[in-house]
Amino acid sequence: MATYRFSFPTMIHFGAGVRRQAGLHLKEKGLKKPLFVTDRGLGALPVCHEFLEELRSEGLGYASFSEIWGNPVKSQVLAGGAAYRKHGCDSLIGFGGGAALDVAKAIALLINHPGDLFDYEDDKPGARPFDQTIPYWIALPTTAGTGSEVGRSSVVSDDETHLKKIIFSPVLLAKAVFADPELSRELPAKMTAATGMDALTHCVEAFLAKGYHPLCDGIALEGFRLSAGALVRAVKEPKNLDARSDMLMASMMGAIAFQKGLGLTHSCAHALSTVADMHHGLANGVMLDHALRINAIPTAERFSRMAQTIGLRETGPENLLEWFGRLKAEVGIPRNLTEAGVPRDRLSKLVEVAVHDACHPSNPVPCTRETFLDVFSRAFG
Amino acid sequence: MATYRFSFPTMIHFGAGVRRQAGLHLKEKGLKKPLFVTDRGLGALPVCHEFLEELRSEGLGYASFSEIWGNPVKSQVLAGGAAYRKHGCDSLIGFGGGAALDVAKAIALLINHPGDLFDYEDDKPGARPFDQTIPYWIALPTTAGTGSEVGRSSVVSDDETHLKKIIFSPVLLAKAVFADPELSRELPAKMTAATGMDALTHCVEAFLAKGYHPLCDGIALEGFRLSAGALVRAVKEPKNLDARSDMLMASMMGAIAFQKGLGLTHSCAHALSTVADMHHGLANGVMLDHALRINAIPTAERFSRMAQTIGLRETGPENLLEWFGRLKAEVGIPRNLTEAGVPRDRLSKLVEVAVHDACHPSNPVPCTRETFLDVFSRAFG
Repeated sequence: MATYRFSFPTMIHFGAGVRRQAGLHLKEKGLKKPLFVTDRGLGALPVCHEFLEELRSEGLGYASFSEIWGNPVKSQVLAGGAAYRKHGCDSLIGFGGGAALDVAKAIALLINHPGDLFDYEDDKPGARPFDQTIPYWIALPTTAGTGSEVGRSSVVSDDETHLKKIIFSPVLLAKAVFADPELSRELPAKMTAATGMDALTHCVEAFLAKGYHPLCDGIALEGFRLSAGALVRAVKEPKNLDARSDMLMASMMGAIAFQKGLGLTHSCAHALSTVADMHHGLANGVMLDHALRINAIPTAERFSRMAQTIGLRETGPENLLEWFGRLKAEVGIPRNLTEAGVPRDRLSKLVEVAVHDACHPSNPVPCTRETFLDVFSRAFG
Repeated sequence: MATYRFSFPTMIHFGAGVRRQAGLHLKEKGLKKPLFVTDRGLGALPVCHEFLEELRSEGLGYASFSEIWGNPVKSQVLAGGAAYRKHGCDSLIGFGGGAALDVAKAIALLINHPGDLFDYEDDKPGARPFDQTIPYWIALPTTAGTGSEVGRSSVVSDDETHLKKIIFSPVLLAKAVFADPELSRELPAKMTAATGMDALTHCVEAFLAKGYHPLCDGIALEGFRLSAGALVRAVKEPKNLDARSDMLMASMMGAIAFQKGLGLTHSCAHALSTVADMHHGLANGVMLDHALRINAIPTAERFSRMAQTIGLRETGPENLLEWFGRLKAEVGIPRNLTEAGVPRDRLSKLVEVAVHDACHPSNPVPCTRETFLDVFSRAFG
C-alpha cells in the first residue's frame, strides 16, 4: 500500500509502514532528542521496542516516558515534563491511543508555558494565554477512535477530584501525524469495537450537527461510509490491513469533522464515563441508536443520505437506526445499558451530568432534562 | 447569514459581509499598508471603492494596483511588484477572480525571492527554491470558479510566447481567505455559468481521480452536491445569496479536493485555451459530458454515487452524463465545440496539446492520443 500526504491542516502521513518515516522526519527538522510518550501497556510491547530501535538506528537520541495508565491525570503530565527536562529533550513523539496523545500534548504545552496546567483550562475565567512556543511534536495513533492525533484538545483529569479538564487551543495540534494502520493490528477485538464505534459516532454526529459547514459534512459522510464498511471486518479479522486502514482514516475524518460540533450521543457518553466509569467509545456505541432516535424525524433528510451512502435499500430514518442496532450486535457492543451492567438507579445522575455537558448544544434538536430522561430510560431497555 | 471559520489548511472566513473583517484582520496582524491587487474591470466598480473606503476608515494605509487584464502575464506581476516597493507596502490583498489572485500570489513571491519569476516554474530543471519569507497576503474571491484563493499555484503567461507557466508551492497559500458571497452577485450570467462549471468540474474530476484520498473524496462529493443544486439558480437569479454562497463554497471545495488530482476534462480544457483561446471554465463546461464518457463504465460505482448524491432517480453512468447535458443547456453552455465556434480543423492540434497536459495522468482511465482523438471528435458534434 502506498503512502500519502494530506493536510487539513495537520500534515498527515498515512499508510502501512509510515511509522518508519517518523525518525527521519524529526532529523530533517533539525531535532536530536525527542521524548517518546506512550502508555504503560504499549510501552511493554515489541512494537514499541522496534520503533525505538529504529529511532536509534536513525541516529536519534531519545528518552522514553510510559508512566500513563487509565484516564490521564495531571501528575502524569508533570512527570512527563520532568522527564523531558531531565533528559534535555527538544521535541516529543506521542505514540498510542487518546490517553498517550493527550498527555504528549499537555507536556508540550507545559514546557514553555508558565503556571499550572489547569490555568489553561478551556473557558476558565482568567485562563492563561497560549502565547509561548510549543516544542515540535508528532503523533502516531495506535487506535482508530478518538482522532486525538488531529485534534486541538487534551483532556486531563484532576488527580484528586477526578474531574476532567479540557485544554483547548489550535497551537496544541501535532505538527505532523504518522498514521500507520499496522500499529492498530494488535488491538484486541473489544477495543477495536469500542474505539471504532467512537470514530463512527464522531462522523455521524458531526454530519448531523447544526450549522453550515459543507467541508466537515463531506468529510463526515465519507468517514461514516468508510467506518460502516470496515468496522465489522476490523473486529473479526484483526490483521486485515484494508479494514484497519479505513478505520484509521475514518477516525481522523471524524475528529477533523467534529470541529463542526457533536451531539447528544456524546453528552450521554460523557455522563456514562463520569457516573459509571464506562469506556468512552463503548458508551457511544451503546447509546448510539437510543440517542439518535431523537434526531431521526427532524433530520430525516440527513438520515436518508447516510442510509443511501452505506447502501441500505430502504432509506427511512428507522432503517438507519435498525442498522446501528445490527452493527452493535455484530461487533459485540451491548444492546442497552442493562446489558452493559449499568444499574438503573444511576438514571437521575446520568440525566443530570448529560444535560450540563458541552456537546449537545450543537445537536440538531434542542436537548432538555426531559430529553435525556427519555433517552436514558429507553436505553436501560 | 452567520459567518464561519474553517481551516483545511487555509483559514477561511466565510459568509455574507465577511469582506468587512479583512481590514481589521490585517491590523490585528500588525500590518499597516497592504497593496490592493485587482483587475481593471473590477477596479472601476463601486464594490472596490467601497472596500477601499472601509480599509481607510479602519485606519489602514494602502496602495492600489489594478493593471491586470486578460490572462495574466509576467509584466503585470513585475508592475505590481514595483508598486508594492514604491509605496512601501507590507502585505497584499488579492481581490477578484483567478487572474487577480494569481497575480497577487506571484507578486508576493517576488518581493523577497531573487531572480526571474519564471526561475520558480514548477518542475523546471534548476528551478530556484522557495526559501525566503512571503509577505502576509489575504484573498477575497469575487467569482466562484477556480478556487485560486485556497490554491497553491499561480499561472502566469510569458508576455511574448503566451506560454502558460505554473508557479507552485504551499508557501504561496493565502494566509487567510475572506470569502464573501455578496462579492459574486454582480457577476454576469455568462461568467457565473462558465466559472461555475469550472467549480463543478473540479469537484467531479477530483472525486473520480485515481488514488486513496478519502478526505478529498468527501469534500469533492459534497462540493458537487452543492454546485449541482445551486448553479442554475445562481445563473438565473444572480442576487440569490443562498445560491451564490453554495457556489462560492463549492468552488473552494473543488480546489481543496483537487490536490488529489484532476482528469481528462481539464486536459481538454487546457488544450482549448491554448489552441482556441477559450475561457477555461467554459471549456470545461463544453467538454464535461463528452470527456467523462471515457470514465463512465470503468468508474460506474463512483458515477452512481454522484448520481445518488444529487438525487437522480436512475443512477446509471448514462443518467449522470445526460444530467450534465441538461445542466449545460439550462445555464447556456454550448452543447459541443461546433456550437462554441471552434473550427474543426483544430482537431489534431487540440489532441496534441491535450495529450501532453499534466492533468490526465491522474484520470482514473489512462488517456492516449487515441483517447483524445475520440473525445474531441465526438465533442465537435
